[in-house]
Amino acid sequence: MNKIIYLDNNATTKVDERVVEAMLPYFSQNYGNPSSMYELGAINQKAIKEARETMKEFFGANNAKEILFTASGSESANTAIKGILAADRLKTHLITTKVEHPCVLNVYKQLEKEGYNVTYIGVNASGELNTEELYEAVNEKTALVSCMYANNETGAIFPVKEIAEKVKSINPKTKIFVDAVQAAGKIDLNVKDTQIDMMSVSGHKFHAPKGIGALYVKSSTLITPLIMGGHQESGRRAGTENVPYIVGMAKAAQLAKDNLGYETTEIKRLRDKLEKGLLSKIYNARLNSAARIRVPNTTNIGFEYIEGELILLNMNDYGICASSGSACTSGSLDPSHVLKAMGVPFTSLHGSIRFSLSRYTTEDEIDYTISKMPAIIDKLTKISPYQKELQELKERKGII
Amino acid sequence: MNKIIYLDNNATTKVDERVVEAMLPYFSQNYGNPSSMYELGAINQKAIKEARETMKEFFGANNAKEILFTASGSESANTAIKGILAADRLKTHLITTKVEHPCVLNVYKQLEKEGYNVTYIGVNASGELNTEELYEAVNEKTALVSCMYANNETGAIFPVKEIAEKVKSINPKTKIFVDAVQAAGKIDLNVKDTQIDMMSVSGHKFHAPKGIGALYVKSSTLITPLIMGGHQESGRRAGTENVPYIVGMAKAAQLAKDNLGYETTEIKRLRDKLEKGLLSKIYNARLNSAARIRVPNTTNIGFEYIEGELILLNMNDYGICASSGSACTSGSLDPSHVLKAMGVPFTSLHGSIRFSLSRYTTEDEIDYTISKMPAIIDKLTKISPYQKELQELKERKGII
Repeated sequence: MNKIIYLDNNATTKVDERVVEAMLPYFSQNYGNPSSMYELGAINQKAIKEARETMKEFFGANNAKEILFTASGSESANTAIKGILAADRLKTHLITTKVEHPCVLNVYKQLEKEGYNVTYIGVNASGELNTEELYEAVNEKTALVSCMYANNETGAIFPVKEIAEKVKSINPKTKIFVDAVQAAGKIDLNVKDTQIDMMSVSGHKFHAPKGIGALYVKSSTLITPLIMGGHQESGRRAGTENVPYIVGMAKAAQLAKDNLGYETTEIKRLRDKLEKGLLSKIYNARLNSAARIRVPNTTNIGFEYIEGELILLNMNDYGICASSGSACTSGSLDPSHVLKAMGVPFTSLHGSIRFSLSRYTTEDEIDYTISKMPAIIDKLTKISPYQKELQELKERKGII
Repeated sequence: MNKIIYLDNNATTKVDERVVEAMLPYFSQNYGNPSSMYELGAINQKAIKEARETMKEFFGANNAKEILFTASGSESANTAIKGILAADRLKTHLITTKVEHPCVLNVYKQLEKEGYNVTYIGVNASGELNTEELYEAVNEKTALVSCMYANNETGAIFPVKEIAEKVKSINPKTKIFVDAVQAAGKIDLNVKDTQIDMMSVSGHKFHAPKGIGALYVKSSTLITPLIMGGHQESGRRAGTENVPYIVGMAKAAQLAKDNLGYETTEIKRLRDKLEKGLLSKIYNARLNSAARIRVPNTTNIGFEYIEGELILLNMNDYGICASSGSACTSGSLDPSHVLKAMGVPFTSLHGSIRFSLSRYTTEDEIDYTISKMPAIIDKLTKISPYQKELQELKERKGII
């Protein structure tokens, strides 16, 4: 494999070598079952306890007991949503957004089939949530408001704390679930002193491995388990604990927390450089991710009148990794449901690319990408069937 | 930590160093999302495909598409049971056994609350299933028969293939789920050409890490997903794939399959030596695991009139790890539900210890255990409040 410029960190991240280091002793050395009575078990029980404390700090929660370990962001979301609804079957109205991750949206699609009434809140052209629309939708029967913290495709940050407060002021019994998978490691979560009931994160988005996640559940909030069985996780999630990954995620969380300053300065600087570079050098580039408040690492740019999959294939020839839509919807050629909800015009919808940076991204990589992209886009633009429209776009931009 | 004699391999196992080796490249090197279009994604997609083929061989299945990756045995069981019931809501009768693992039993306890009618089949004094009782319970409304392959506490192997055949001959629409967590790696699963619909395994019982499992679902059998979301695992289990552990479990499965001969000869020899050694040297030792067909690595011995937790604590002083009951029910002082179902007398129930070996168990370790246990048991027997009964036992055995 040639040199890789990895600009797809919202899809998954490289596991930090220090995380691997932290996990290694728990495979072949401290391999006991945390539930076992002897010392080899106790070592593991202790490791989990420490990791839970670290995750508490990461969430900015009040109590380590509010942290549940799961095997993914998807499991966390499924546990939160189904777990809260099973605990109170009488409320049948749910509110979520049109731009949630598929793992959340598909749960709501299923719940609609089961008789729930779901309101999907839209976003504006910059990807910002129509919060007024959300508040108006809350009623007596609203069991749950489910809103992501940061959007995976545009990076737009939603005002989840304000939403939680306002929703509770309308209906104090409505529960709030925040999918923070794309916010974790990029901004401070600080769930303490908010009205948020549940919040999910996924380790592999902040340099822990794929296959580990966590769910914050406020101590006063009751959920039923998704995976029933043993007594693990205080009876809220059965299954022998994945100690290596739990330890690894805690290490990654601590590193990410320590790195927040770098994220909001250096990573943001590189992201902005990439964004400005591409927008200034490519006439048919259009910024999709124009939200005023965004995570520092993400940009989403539409290249008008060309195909996203073709762009990615050509980028791959240069070792540049990025994505169109979310990795979880790939395999389908449908355009992004997020960009559609934003009303991104048809001309740009199919040629939109998300670039997402990490602390491993270097200035050289950004410069390389800025230098290679114009030729890639130019080549594909020349073979586009929309030459007349492209000519008009050039003229509108005063290029010709 | 001092020298460890690990005789608790039914609780969890040491991860094989070759498994760790196989996983390592997928943390910080081949870290792409398997759903991504570029090469770093494709490498992961290929690794999953190969692992699925290996797991197909491990299950002895017909088609790799019949294998689903999950995060644990508990998740596999929850997926199988809830997934099959959601697919057909009309049948409301379920059959399982009194000696299933808690992750299965607790699901049935919950389903009873939801209106299902559950029949629990008993075992005889040796831990063998009352199959006639099971066949008589099958009726038109029976949605599912759920029976473990090997019991975690006694090692008793249940005739699951015969059960599947007989149940289908009574009601062809009844589905069969086999929890093979304690059989996998110890005996050949060979699910092909059986009438079994679903079978679950857990990686950490055969030297893969905790946090990875698999579920076999016969291609003609439909289930709904437990974790909804992305398109992964053909839409049957959402969440970015845990590629390192998937690769690791496949490696462990291949090693376990290669090791089956050693399991049934050498491990069985050491287990038999331990069992005979303890029964012959300790007058108040009583064999609980007397089933005619057993996995080769497990024995369960009751030490009459003394407390299991105390025995374990004293064994811990010598670095010998074993367990009373299953690790998943520890924390509770209730005696084992398995031994209770077998009718193990009260005098022996509370002092029962499970010893479970692995390919890492050495003859020296077995000799050491046989040499240390009599003094431990003798010490605790002397402080037992049941001196009169112990005296009578001695006399019955002709020791005095």
